Amino acid sequence: MDNLNKKEVERIFSSAPFIADLGLELTSIEPGECRTRLVLANRHLQQDGFVHFGVQATVADHTAGAAGASVAGPGQIVLTSDFSLKLLRSAKGTHIECIATVLKAGSSLTVVESEVYCGTTGDMRLVSKATVTLAVVSPREKI
Amino acid sequence: MDNLNKKEVERIFSSAPFIADLGLELTSIEPGECRTRLVLANRHLQQDGFVHFGVQATVADHTAGAAGASVAGPGQIVLTSDFSLKLLRSAKGTHIECIATVLKAGSSLTVVESEVYCGTTGDMRLVSKATVTLAVVSPREKI
Amino acid sequence: MDNLNKKEVERIFSSAPFIADLGLELTSIEPGECRTRLVLANRHLQQDGFVHFGVQATVADHTAGAAGASVAGPGQIVLTSDFSLKLLRSAKGTHIECIATVLKAGSSLTVVESEVYCGTTGDMRLVSKATVTLAVVSPREKI
Amino acid sequence: MDNLNKKEVERIFSSAPFIADLGLELTSIEPGECRTRLVLANRHLQQDGFVHFGVQATVADHTAGAAGASVAGPGQIVLTSDFSLKLLRSAKGTHIECIATVLKAGSSLTVVESEVYCGTTGDMRLVSKATVTLAVVSPREKI
Repeated sequence: MDNLNKKEVERIFSSAPFIADLGLELTSIEPGECRTRLVLANRHLQQDGFVHFGVQATVADHTAGAAGASVAGPGQIVLTSDFSLKLLRSAKGTHIECIATVLKAGSSLTVVESEVYCGTTGDMRLVSKATVTLAVVSPREKI
Repeated sequence: MDNLNKKEVERIFSSAPFIADLGLELTSIEPGECRTRLVLANRHLQQDGFVHFGVQATVADHTAGAAGASVAGPGQIVLTSDFSLKLLRSAKGTHIECIATVLKAGSSLTVVESEVYCGTTGDMRLVSKATVTLAVVSPREKI
Repeated sequence: MDNLNKKEVERIFSSAPFIADLGLELTSIEPGECRTRLVLANRHLQQDGFVHFGVQATVADHTAGAAGASVAGPGQIVLTSDFSLKLLRSAKGTHIECIATVLKAGSSLTVVESEVYCGTTGDMRLVSKATVTLAVVSPREKI
Repeated sequence: MDNLNKKEVERIFSSAPFIADLGLELTSIEPGECRTRLVLANRHLQQDGFVHFGVQATVADHTAGAAGASVAGPGQIVLTSDFSLKLLRSAKGTHIECIATVLKAGSSLTVVESEVYCGTTGDMRLVSKATVTLAVVSPREKI
């Protein structure tokens, strides 16, 4: 990955207010793979004490976006176009870890898979898995 | 809708920390239909100034959950099992409105559609549409 | 809808061997809306006597493709990019009817919803609903 | 996998008319993993000479169903509840191979991933990937 895209990935994490507010941190970035981590607090929960779906969706989507951006061309940005997620187990624990992997990088559409793990250190379980389609656009043609 | 389910819908909004934190408000609830509203602030945005996908997903999911809960049996709760969302237009504006409608209520699975509108008063546009499958469970059999 | 696109819609039905083999018929086409019909036979069933998922998916997808083609520009074709379908009820009956409606027509991506009904004349029920994203391409840039 | 489920998997292939008609063959079955193969003919194509989406969807779904059935309890059957598929590349070639792997086996819902490859011997490419949610039911409670 060249410097330009690394810069774009860093921008995705440093310049997105909702992500800063959520507390999602970039753990590692390689071309086509991004890993993130979120330390859980009470504010991330839903009414029955589980991690809210919206938290998992945000983590899965944003990590996928960074993975997609890592393989986009110079000056291009990615925007989520389609998102689907299966919840496999109810999510409880101290933190979340997410691994997003590019399945297919295209000139106009990139498909990424995100795996979301939740639990405590040494006991993390796959709680949801998402497939995300990203539109690859030049800023002037933002949809 | 009997009082019991109205109570469950109210609990979904009053007892979910992530929803209180986001600022999502219940506008109306009928059997099988729920409407919500979110006043947008800078903290809801992504890196390019649009409403973050995660915000839209959270709104679509939570409103769908409330619509599903409104038609669930006494003592039953709903948990998101499957979620898919299409982003149709980039989302900018002062607030979001969401309408969730039950497509099929079942004894174990309920399917709900959520439409997310964004813009300014008098100029709201459909920005995304989600289909949500909810598992209908009794608290003891939580997945 | 101009003649050119009507021609494209007709080509989609007359030149697709899998569709002719299945027996799917075009019922009506308007800009952004397509209706089709399939008379059911034993060969359309799965192992428990219901209409096979693959039959419903094919009908939902192809009808969506025709709806999308009806609003595409001259010389453009549409190719399915993303498909998601919820089965709402088990499907039994003498025939299937499908209505596909364009939710958002775009220059590169068009989103269409397909409703699949199954039963007997006068007693048709919604058995599945699909959301289909179509890539709109010029033949030379086929993905 | 005990004999009972092997019998159920074999039944899924031998007793589904649409599958026999399509020509899909079971290649191998292990607990939680099923492989199938389809020799392509002109009748499997769409209007532009590619393998029709419906063919890929049918293969992905049916192979997923068999993988899910392989880990279901005695006397239980599986029915597709939710299906989503991304087309990654246009599909051309002499045959299709599909590998379905159970991601999460549950008492009421099982989630399976299907990878569809297409091409010629020695040159097969991943053309689509599906995620399938199966309802696990006893025949009397068929949805």
